[in-house]
Amino acid sequence: APLQQSRNSIRLLSGILAVNILLLGSALVCGAAFSKVKVLSDEEMHIYLTILLILTTAWMIFYMVHTASQTQAVLYKDSHAGPIWLRGGLVLFGVASLIMDIFKIGYSTGQLNCESPVKVTFPLVQLVFVVVQTYFLWVHSKDCVQKESNITGCGLMLTLATNLMLWMSAVADESLHQTGVEALKPNGSFSHLRDGSMFFKAGGSECECTHSACGIFEKGFYYLYPFNIEYSLFASAMTYVMWKNIGREIDDCSHHKISFRAKGIVFGVIAGLLVVIAGLGVFIVYEVEVTGDESKKRVLIMYYIFSIVGLILMSLVSLAGSIIYRFDKRTVVSTKNPTRSLDVALLLGAALGQFLISYFSIVAIVAEKNTRTISILNLTCSCLIILQLCLQNVFIIEGLHKQPYHAEPPVVCVVFINEGTSRSNPYSPSLRNDNDEPSPAENSLELSSHSHGFRSTTHSSSSRMSWKRRALKEISMFLLLCNVIFWIIPAFGARPQFDNGLEEWVYGFSMWVAIVNIGLPFGIFYRMHSVASLFEVYLTS
Amino acid sequence: APLQQSRNSIRLLSGILAVNILLLGSALVCGAAFSKVKVLSDEEMHIYLTILLILTTAWMIFYMVHTASQTQAVLYKDSHAGPIWLRGGLVLFGVASLIMDIFKIGYSTGQLNCESPVKVTFPLVQLVFVVVQTYFLWVHSKDCVQKESNITGCGLMLTLATNLMLWMSAVADESLHQTGVEALKPNGSFSHLRDGSMFFKAGGSECECTHSACGIFEKGFYYLYPFNIEYSLFASAMTYVMWKNIGREIDDCSHHKISFRAKGIVFGVIAGLLVVIAGLGVFIVYEVEVTGDESKKRVLIMYYIFSIVGLILMSLVSLAGSIIYRFDKRTVVSTKNPTRSLDVALLLGAALGQFLISYFSIVAIVAEKNTRTISILNLTCSCLIILQLCLQNVFIIEGLHKQPYHAEPPVVCVVFINEGTSRSNPYSPSLRNDNDEPSPAENSLELSSHSHGFRSTTHSSSSRMSWKRRALKEISMFLLLCNVIFWIIPAFGARPQFDNGLEEWVYGFSMWVAIVNIGLPFGIFYRMHSVASLFEVYLTS
Repeated sequence: APLQQSRNSIRLLSGILAVNILLLGSALVCGAAFSKVKVLSDEEMHIYLTILLILTTAWMIFYMVHTASQTQAVLYKDSHAGPIWLRGGLVLFGVASLIMDIFKIGYSTGQLNCESPVKVTFPLVQLVFVVVQTYFLWVHSKDCVQKESNITGCGLMLTLATNLMLWMSAVADESLHQTGVEALKPNGSFSHLRDGSMFFKAGGSECECTHSACGIFEKGFYYLYPFNIEYSLFASAMTYVMWKNIGREIDDCSHHKISFRAKGIVFGVIAGLLVVIAGLGVFIVYEVEVTGDESKKRVLIMYYIFSIVGLILMSLVSLAGSIIYRFDKRTVVSTKNPTRSLDVALLLGAALGQFLISYFSIVAIVAEKNTRTISILNLTCSCLIILQLCLQNVFIIEGLHKQPYHAEPPVVCVVFINEGTSRSNPYSPSLRNDNDEPSPAENSLELSSHSHGFRSTTHSSSSRMSWKRRALKEISMFLLLCNVIFWIIPAFGARPQFDNGLEEWVYGFSMWVAIVNIGLPFGIFYRMHSVASLFEVYLTS
Repeated sequence: APLQQSRNSIRLLSGILAVNILLLGSALVCGAAFSKVKVLSDEEMHIYLTILLILTTAWMIFYMVHTASQTQAVLYKDSHAGPIWLRGGLVLFGVASLIMDIFKIGYSTGQLNCESPVKVTFPLVQLVFVVVQTYFLWVHSKDCVQKESNITGCGLMLTLATNLMLWMSAVADESLHQTGVEALKPNGSFSHLRDGSMFFKAGGSECECTHSACGIFEKGFYYLYPFNIEYSLFASAMTYVMWKNIGREIDDCSHHKISFRAKGIVFGVIAGLLVVIAGLGVFIVYEVEVTGDESKKRVLIMYYIFSIVGLILMSLVSLAGSIIYRFDKRTVVSTKNPTRSLDVALLLGAALGQFLISYFSIVAIVAEKNTRTISILNLTCSCLIILQLCLQNVFIIEGLHKQPYHAEPPVVCVVFINEGTSRSNPYSPSLRNDNDEPSPAENSLELSSHSHGFRSTTHSSSSRMSWKRRALKEISMFLLLCNVIFWIIPAFGARPQFDNGLEEWVYGFSMWVAIVNIGLPFGIFYRMHSVASLFEVYLTS
């Protein structure tokens, strides 16, 4: 109880800290972005962000040098936290953020004569921050801090708040930039917005650049913004898990080392690969042809038809998976697992971004009573996205909560032995004979993990289980591949939300830009996260 | 485990339902409020709300007639849920909402010739809804539903989503109205906003009213809007608790019947009453004098000085209370209690509204480098509000988690006997002698609750405890009274946020109206909630 109490008070204090940082920051961002009178500019915001970045970097270095090096400070590691896809994604987006910062520095040095020095300092500081944070999260994301948890709690909340502030300011910057570009177009259909727009300040920057590479730098860093936004989201998720793990004592050391084998899973892989290849084709054609006015319409229709077919298939398959789970007698994992709950929360939360965009599209199309082919296709597609996300979430969440096949709740430490290694292991034959008598039918598609120390209870019904497990594996593999392609298309720059032009017209460009810029990064995060979760479902079923 | 699983799946499904309703609704609200082209109007929004209201009303009637009348459907009642202050507040604000609806109907009937019939239907349906919902929550807010929890879960989430939608549309309506009124002022300082404003549609309603009472009705219902907003927040909180309680089995029947006695608590009451009286004086002068241009400045200075003095006192007292808790050896209640956690979450969440307003004020004043007396006072006041809310939250949360004096964690059912009744009770003397030997010093200020069935362990140090308990009681009583006056001033219509005019100028009127209309109802809710929580702290310490 006293331990619980101290954990609660740490959470309360550090939570209050983070809320204060975020609210002050959002006042600055809103003031700079929306204010009509030029009292607040980007400058205050950048000074604030620079201070936050320096503080966070200092704390992370302090943590790595001082806390983590202490014996007893980190006694436990949470094996579920910071999985490889999250850390890999962090590094990938971190590298893109570094390049963006270099471009920004190059751009700002050309404007030193007329802009304030804060604009150069900020990307420099951010560069250091990204390097330090990526290293910090790569090495320490599994830590369950036990000592000095008060400082660590506040430090982690500071890191979380800083990342969310970076996310917020990047979204605002990106929206301002897009609105500015749109408003400058001479024959743009949104020229009526130029005065009334909330973001009207973006159009006019009087400062001239002194060197010739400026244009390239500017273009470059606006292309890299989405990656930076994703980087902030990834870092936030990992920091939050670390914060939740403060003072936690992991009581089971069961590290499920289940090796991956796709043997026998044919339909799912083939169908999934077909969707991926078709999607890549559509994506390439889309990117090439979308610039022309006449061809734009054609590629949009193509894009929507591909999406509709893909989404229908995914919905049906998810539904089938959920129905199979109804007949699945496996026990549900009921032990508390913060990372698992967080996984589920992130999955549901990130889906909200896509929901937001879809509902705004639906309302716009229905209200406008537009009956062009593109609008009808867009409407169908938006409805299907919502349906698909709901069904897929239900399928994944049910799957994650099931006990893995061949693995009963571990009473003592359970060591899973990889079949590949156990064949070359002199002890493996006896182990196999002791514990496991796989039926020939199951052998071809069984998971190569053998539980050691108890008898598996699912064997009695192994032949009946077999088709269910196979079906679940096929389903999760198919969904995984589909999610990959639905991740690739928006992540690498396809924006049908802007290209079809309807929602812009209904909501106004600036508002639609804000909605898409908030919703889409979450949508991309959702696809990546569901790929990882589906992989886990594949392994455990 | 299977029970837990079914609870989780109900939560998942009903949560997805609520999210979908809310996102579709927010697309409609945003489209109607912000859209530049008149594709979306209020009408779609009102149709959507009417459908939601009818569905929710139907479900509530179904619940009351069918589910709640079944035996076994509601086996347990959560004694912590739906406390009297929440239900009382609900009825109070419900009555105001009813009057508002009647005014609205009166107003709309005059416009029947030119406006759509939806505008009359909606307040009629809302009237029925408010009556049914208030009765429903008054009677059933403590239910822990066991049977047909699937339907109940979805029904409660539908109710929650409907209330949040009503809240959202009321906030949007109120903001539109205020912006419209401001833009119509001929010599208003915001006439430059008339074209550029996000809300520019609000100014022009061409429909003429056919009867003479229209003006009165319109004024009336805009005065009553804030109460309707509070009503929606109250109903949302209660519905959420009911939803959390689905399938819950309450295992302790310890109903702490602790009677209230203010005997011996002198300083807190006197100091608190002085603050309340001073506050009432300031409030009345403020309301009377704020209309004049010259006197406005004077009353604003008076208001800010009163707030600063009050907030400093409250901050110091909360801090002293938290320090006393550090030396308090009482055990912490560690049993899981959803209503308690929700109490804490609501306290922290509702404080965000006030934080939001304060941070936006601070940023505006600092950015503008305004050094008028009013601005300096406003800045000081905003900073103190943040400080005070943080300190008070820490004090209340620590207090709520302490075990009540004289009450050890109940192992069996513990019956608390009220001293007042036990004196007239023939069995009480023997009970007293058996269980309790209060020391004379403690007698005067002890809680009149005697634990039955075990010996109190705090008695050994009763004389040392005494001053701590007394101090805690004085502190919570003083804070309670101060929170009452800081509730009254904004709840009954003082709006220094608009009267000082600075933030409006920095952020633009429409944005500042939106911030205040979102933040202030939460601030008012926070003060009411903290009064209730402080009362509980008073009773248990």
